[in-house]
Amino acid sequence: MNKILIISRQRDAYRRLLTQAQLPDLELTENQEEANILLADPPRVANSMNSYPALNWLQSTFAGIDALTRDNIRKDYMLTNIRGHFGQLIAEYVLGYSLDYTRHLSQYRQQQASGQWQPQPYSSLASKTMVILGTGSIGAHLARVAKAFDLTVIGINRSGRCDEPAFDRIYPLDGLSDGLALADILVSTLPATPETDNLLNADSLSHCRDTLLFNVGRGNALCETGLLKAANNGHIAHAFLDVFKQEPLPEQHPFWQHPAVTMTPHIAAESFPEQVFEIFTANYLRYLNQQPLLYQIDFTRGY
Amino acid sequence: MNKILIISRQRDAYRRLLTQAQLPDLELTENQEEANILLADPPRVANSMNSYPALNWLQSTFAGIDALTRDNIRKDYMLTNIRGHFGQLIAEYVLGYSLDYTRHLSQYRQQQASGQWQPQPYSSLASKTMVILGTGSIGAHLARVAKAFDLTVIGINRSGRCDEPAFDRIYPLDGLSDGLALADILVSTLPATPETDNLLNADSLSHCRDTLLFNVGRGNALCETGLLKAANNGHIAHAFLDVFKQEPLPEQHPFWQHPAVTMTPHIAAESFPEQVFEIFTANYLRYLNQQPLLYQIDFTRGY
Repeated sequence: MNKILIISRQRDAYRRLLTQAQLPDLELTENQEEANILLADPPRVANSMNSYPALNWLQSTFAGIDALTRDNIRKDYMLTNIRGHFGQLIAEYVLGYSLDYTRHLSQYRQQQASGQWQPQPYSSLASKTMVILGTGSIGAHLARVAKAFDLTVIGINRSGRCDEPAFDRIYPLDGLSDGLALADILVSTLPATPETDNLLNADSLSHCRDTLLFNVGRGNALCETGLLKAANNGHIAHAFLDVFKQEPLPEQHPFWQHPAVTMTPHIAAESFPEQVFEIFTANYLRYLNQQPLLYQIDFTRGY
Repeated sequence: MNKILIISRQRDAYRRLLTQAQLPDLELTENQEEANILLADPPRVANSMNSYPALNWLQSTFAGIDALTRDNIRKDYMLTNIRGHFGQLIAEYVLGYSLDYTRHLSQYRQQQASGQWQPQPYSSLASKTMVILGTGSIGAHLARVAKAFDLTVIGINRSGRCDEPAFDRIYPLDGLSDGLALADILVSTLPATPETDNLLNADSLSHCRDTLLFNVGRGNALCETGLLKAANNGHIAHAFLDVFKQEPLPEQHPFWQHPAVTMTPHIAAESFPEQVFEIFTANYLRYLNQQPLLYQIDFTRGY
């Protein structure tokens, strides 16, 4: 009999889904000693990882698992995350705010409030280039949606290679500055690894010109003071930030009031319990049958 | 030698493009008597149509040509409009405001201004249905972009038939209420014809439930008092209106201040002179060679 313990903001929803599903040889437990499976939000479980002596598999409810891949934390179990539906949600966020900006959608609301009928000049996304850092499932999905708007789409990854046909070109990470120089819209979907720490900084961002920057990956990839410098120098026209080095963003942080920053409380791609549970179920049946799990994290790469 | 007269808000841009292009056997004229070709914004030329005795062909700079298809106006010449790039611009407008609404993009701006870190529940467009009235080039383009967001897309047109594969289903116009009952997002791209007058009214809109309504076609298709009733009864959650029975919208009109209405000054799809001129050039070469013109209007149908 497998024993599962749930540690999540959405604990009640997962308990309900588990009870309904009646998966074979699986019991809910509250006993940390006996749990061999955890279904958990990584930030909620990271500080208690040594309390589960029987742990064999942890299914993350998030895509981002960097809380569990840091140094000095156990890595003697199988860690799986969730993928798939985040690409859709990220694409909604990025295209939504891009169109809000390029088509002046909020500005028209203000004009309406003040009784003003005044067309504003604009150009279509079709004339613009989107550069996507990271060409995994999220970056590739975003690229496909961007192509529907006829954007030119450039991907940047470690190898400089990618099979997703929606990318018009792929640059390797050491060609980062060439890529950034082309970006009307720059989107980081990068995971948090030592390699991505502050990859976007005052130096790299100085290659941008009047660029819309999105960070929908992890807060570590963006040097926050570097962004403020790039925004003040016109390299970045506006930044749309969903992830931060510290969340919630501290009250005194300059982003709250900066006119070139739009910030959201880490909502670009949420884990909906029903979708997470679908992945958990598929993985649990694989686990039972001793098959390789879906979306298993390689602790040495960190993703 | 052909003589062309330009009547447009963008007259200077068109004159410059014409001069650069050096099209064969074509001269600019200011003389109404001798002009056999007009390049014109329909509302600007409609009241002077009897002043061009030599008129043989009018290339509209707009998609909407209803100012020239009314009763009691001459129809003894070839009228062509422009198509093609409007679909892209309309899709940007509709998806932009749809995402602003479903993903609370403006709300997060307000939260940021008041120092609030507060995720809002949301669902993806992927679970929703878009119903598009009109399946011509604009409706079909919008359908293709909507499919990139995994929306279910239903088209409604006169015949109930359409070859565009992006539509999941096509309903005939006499099944309008069945279509409206399925609409999370309802978009009118309809041209102004007697048949489309007030097609969306208190009665037909009463089949909607909590629907986002877009009018990006023509103002005649929407009964304005019917919309206010449907909004007050919850049939319409929010209306995004770019076209109106009278433009600019009169100062005292209730739409200006209505919380369920977002209005824009007829900017969803603008005629960019460079793109209009491309179509004009292609058509002029056809005209010279006595080939059928592109996008010719059938005066009996009105589109």
